[in-house]
Amino acid sequence: MSQRYRMTVAYDGTAYGGWQIQPNARTVQEVLEQQIATLTGETAKVHGSGRTDQGVHARGQVAHFDLARGGKCKSLRAGLNATLPGDIRVQKIEEVAPDFHARRSATGKEYRYFIWNDCIVPPFVRLYRTPVRKPLDVAAMREAAAGLTGRHDFAAFTANPNRVVESTVRDLRKLTVSSKGRDIVLIAQADGFLYKMVRSLAGFLIRVGEGAVPPCEARAILDSRIRTAVVPTAPPEGLFLWRVWYD
Amino acid sequence: MSQRYRMTVAYDGTAYGGWQIQPNARTVQEVLEQQIATLTGETAKVHGSGRTDQGVHARGQVAHFDLARGGKCKSLRAGLNATLPGDIRVQKIEEVAPDFHARRSATGKEYRYFIWNDCIVPPFVRLYRTPVRKPLDVAAMREAAAGLTGRHDFAAFTANPNRVVESTVRDLRKLTVSSKGRDIVLIAQADGFLYKMVRSLAGFLIRVGEGAVPPCEARAILDSRIRTAVVPTAPPEGLFLWRVWYD
Repeated sequence: MSQRYRMTVAYDGTAYGGWQIQPNARTVQEVLEQQIATLTGETAKVHGSGRTDQGVHARGQVAHFDLARGGKCKSLRAGLNATLPGDIRVQKIEEVAPDFHARRSATGKEYRYFIWNDCIVPPFVRLYRTPVRKPLDVAAMREAAAGLTGRHDFAAFTANPNRVVESTVRDLRKLTVSSKGRDIVLIAQADGFLYKMVRSLAGFLIRVGEGAVPPCEARAILDSRIRTAVVPTAPPEGLFLWRVWYD
Repeated sequence: MSQRYRMTVAYDGTAYGGWQIQPNARTVQEVLEQQIATLTGETAKVHGSGRTDQGVHARGQVAHFDLARGGKCKSLRAGLNATLPGDIRVQKIEEVAPDFHARRSATGKEYRYFIWNDCIVPPFVRLYRTPVRKPLDVAAMREAAAGLTGRHDFAAFTANPNRVVESTVRDLRKLTVSSKGRDIVLIAQADGFLYKMVRSLAGFLIRVGEGAVPPCEARAILDSRIRTAVVPTAPPEGLFLWRVWYD
């Protein structure tokens, strides 16, 4: 009888080819599985709440894994953090019921997208901000964000959906734009996100902020259900998977 | 007739062997001089307000250099930032009188030392915080800091003073300890700092915070004028040269 563990992980995605194991790139999932094997002597598959793309960060990615012999949560956490590189930290490990599933049990997610709105990005935040030189019109971005919030078909805000998805309808419960000095932060909460949806929302909002697209266009783009150049994919370095909700 | 320029530079010291040019290490001064030569075709020596050690960061290092043919400050700044690596940013360039000297004209400096007081350092701040696992007694650190503030002989708080210094007396105008969550920040302002003085002050205050030394010891150590093991040199990654003052 094995024990299932739920793990909360923070990582700096700069040096990784994303979350999910793949050939020809070092990934976060791979490094976690290697360290669990080294620590426990067991081969465990680490199931994340979802993939993050190359260069995307996570403050609170959630994953689960099973161990036959197991171990105490605090010892597992300390053991993993002792050998993991500093750009991956296990924040928490908890024992969970065997029917907990990091992806399928998730009821919602929050992403945050960080923009540095100036031509000079301070060295200390360069890995965690998307630089935008042109002064952004935050009020216009807020208006566009309001038009996107709610339950909609987000087909126009997903990139290369080359796998079958049952539906492109998502409930975007929250999409806010806040600014403090040169920092502009987008907060997006939904029951789930389509492939590259947050970076598409960010790309569109940046174009609105630059004055390239009027904010009222948001609804027409949603209704079109067609991805166009008006919705670019914003770069990965500003994006953080912030938290995952479970019941 | 050449023109003197004053430059304010921010850098992430992680990848550098410090500020000052030396054999066998890439330094910030060296990279700046190379980029100025590439941009202007002129060989200019960049004089900093002082050295920073290997791994130490700067938010506001100040330096001066001379150019014969010169150029507009904004163009110089934009040109340098276009080719410098992202971990060095020129924040400002101004024309100054030929008698301005980044080191000799400085009337004071501020350093900040950042501690992360927890066993798990978030990946996003790992390069800019010194981790201290044991919960620190901030009140005791404040008491010790108060005992160090003022005009004193800081011979006990400098490391390997293997060059002749005229005096080890400095006016420590401010030394404060503040905490917010797991972040503890030391702010030190003085007319000038001795070699490794801020890291020595930080090392001592951390020991006080850990309960290894009573805060009232500060004055006795100052009076002894002898460096002992009670004053370790704290690691470089938490240290930032924050600003330099001129009249």
